Amino acid sequence: MTVTVPRGFRASGVAAGLKAEGALDVALVVNDGPADVAAAVFTANRCKANPVLWSEQALADGRARAVVLNSGGANCYTGPQGFQATHSAAEQVAAALGLGAIDVAVCSTGLIGEQLRTDALTAGITEAVAALSPDGGGDAAEAIMTTDMHSKQAVEHGDGWSVGGIAKGAGMLAPALATMLVVLTTDADVDAATADGALRAATRTTFDRLDSDGCMSTNDTVLLLCNGASEVAPAADEFGAAVQAVCRDLARQLLADAEGAEHDISIEVRGAAAEDDAVEVGRAIARSNLFKCAVFGKDPNWGRILAAAGTTAAEFDPMRLDVSFNGVRVCRDGQPGEPSSDVDLTPRDVHVVVDLKAGEHTATIWTNDLTHAYVHENSVYST
Amino acid sequence: MTVTVPRGFRASGVAAGLKAEGALDVALVVNDGPADVAAAVFTANRCKANPVLWSEQALADGRARAVVLNSGGANCYTGPQGFQATHSAAEQVAAALGLGAIDVAVCSTGLIGEQLRTDALTAGITEAVAALSPDGGGDAAEAIMTTDMHSKQAVEHGDGWSVGGIAKGAGMLAPALATMLVVLTTDADVDAATADGALRAATRTTFDRLDSDGCMSTNDTVLLLCNGASEVAPAADEFGAAVQAVCRDLARQLLADAEGAEHDISIEVRGAAAEDDAVEVGRAIARSNLFKCAVFGKDPNWGRILAAAGTTAAEFDPMRLDVSFNGVRVCRDGQPGEPSSDVDLTPRDVHVVVDLKAGEHTATIWTNDLTHAYVHENSVYST
Repeated sequence: MTVTVPRGFRASGVAAGLKAEGALDVALVVNDGPADVAAAVFTANRCKANPVLWSEQALADGRARAVVLNSGGANCYTGPQGFQATHSAAEQVAAALGLGAIDVAVCSTGLIGEQLRTDALTAGITEAVAALSPDGGGDAAEAIMTTDMHSKQAVEHGDGWSVGGIAKGAGMLAPALATMLVVLTTDADVDAATADGALRAATRTTFDRLDSDGCMSTNDTVLLLCNGASEVAPAADEFGAAVQAVCRDLARQLLADAEGAEHDISIEVRGAAAEDDAVEVGRAIARSNLFKCAVFGKDPNWGRILAAAGTTAAEFDPMRLDVSFNGVRVCRDGQPGEPSSDVDLTPRDVHVVVDLKAGEHTATIWTNDLTHAYVHENSVYST
Repeated sequence: MTVTVPRGFRASGVAAGLKAEGALDVALVVNDGPADVAAAVFTANRCKANPVLWSEQALADGRARAVVLNSGGANCYTGPQGFQATHSAAEQVAAALGLGAIDVAVCSTGLIGEQLRTDALTAGITEAVAALSPDGGGDAAEAIMTTDMHSKQAVEHGDGWSVGGIAKGAGMLAPALATMLVVLTTDADVDAATADGALRAATRTTFDRLDSDGCMSTNDTVLLLCNGASEVAPAADEFGAAVQAVCRDLARQLLADAEGAEHDISIEVRGAAAEDDAVEVGRAIARSNLFKCAVFGKDPNWGRILAAAGTTAAEFDPMRLDVSFNGVRVCRDGQPGEPSSDVDLTPRDVHVVVDLKAGEHTATIWTNDLTHAYVHENSVYST
């Protein structure tokens, strides 16, 4: 169920003291080859954390042998001292494994604007190298958790090969990407272009459509490490489908574990003139605090949905819109439809359908409700 | 302190039963002339309420004699039946006052997607006409309240003339405009172009820069009625300054009364290459739920400010940004500055300064914190 399911990968997760409570906080994932193909997608935020600045360079050649990850600090807005901490971590891993530093990606997560405790990180990396194991994926998944309640892991099996993944993320969840770190591994034999194409296609319709709280992170990183150890070279579409399935599974796990959430909401926008229109309308709704509060209150308040849709440039006629909550069409042709009292928003899963009646395109955005627990958790996070 | 301070205006506010609790819910403001110059600004939301659709037409000629307003229902997404309710209200007011219906603007506020109770509205309008008084501005201000805790009124005096205003708005507060109804009156002698120019200039830097909860309303309307009764024709810049002052005063009252808020936050973006850049960065920060939760928790979490700034296209170098909270520069050149523990976020007023170091332009966006009370109020609003 994790990154060490595909052959030829080892991983570990150790407690280095970066997190106060003594939980696992340094993870290492190593690709033992034979190949070292890698692809990556990073945050679209212009304010990028130091590990993102480093890993963008490390992955530029489409190759990587290892990734070291820490929770307990994002190492973002920490200046040259922070960049040096990232660089040193990569060099330490490289020296211990007989690699070049440029073969080692680095990911960090936690509070922005505080220097990492490099003594603890250095000791943790030494321990993580010693703990590397073909069964270490679970520990690695646990070591990257921040406010996550559960660790996130997924696997998809091909014919003689597989794709495994771990993820973290519970807050600052919005595209692109969704405040998270994700490491995917595969023993399929794929080239860099195939890996890159599969990863970009998968993130575009999974992590990029997760918008839990509208806040884009500075540290988001999704890595795919490919070693060809299975000696099976799947067709590009078959490989892409497996990567997509793992990303979708992990994205749903991120949604289900979002900070304070009591509802997982899928907003399906149909009848759009273009897919981008559907995404734009879905995102606008997912970012309406009023809509999100209403779902928390089990109130199918479709007026707030249409008010949000009206802020977009998508093609539609406001007087023709339909809105359904869990199958009940509460708004038909821009007017009250079936009674809102017919809608039951007790279940955790909420499915909203908005029909723009302007074309044939569809997209689904996932979000959560806005709850007292979200406010509480994020009012005390750094204090 | 209200719309009946300028000469030649009467107003009223009555209880018509549109609001369950028997509070005032129908307001009327009448311009008794001699002139009937008027200007208006409406919501930028494409999903416009029926009263907005009507009033846009009514104001197209730059003239209006009266405005009738109701709380207890937004009359939005209510189809042809809802438009008919708006039209009938204008006709009833016109008949009672000897005007044409096209001289009467209509404003509504309340829940979206429910038909107005037209029997109650009709009876209320009859009563409101009978109650018209040169001292009625206070009642009118009270009758347009929804979730507002306080009625909002303001006056600015010129030399022999004045500008008065009333406003409502506490939630769905975001540009452009800011979920609100505003009626301004003046006995200054101004032409339609002057009135329009003054109103647009004033709203651009007041109501349009108020972003309490990121949610744009379907009903926003700001009206300015000018009757020349003072027989004083002020210079355009003098008149504009007075309109600006009243709008600014009312905007601050809206901010102070925002749903559930415990802090009024001004986000001043300095050093921008263009004013639009400053506004874009300010808005992105004002819409960060994580930032808003942090202020609620009295936590000067500047990482969340820079993460929000990084989502914009504004010109700046992430490594040069400064951030201050209430005068303490917690981030300097994109790195930790003075200790966050030096910041006191106990007072209601919070002043954030972000220096982009990219030019000479500045803008200030006003917002509120995100609190348990906001979530509570908006999870039970329509139920």
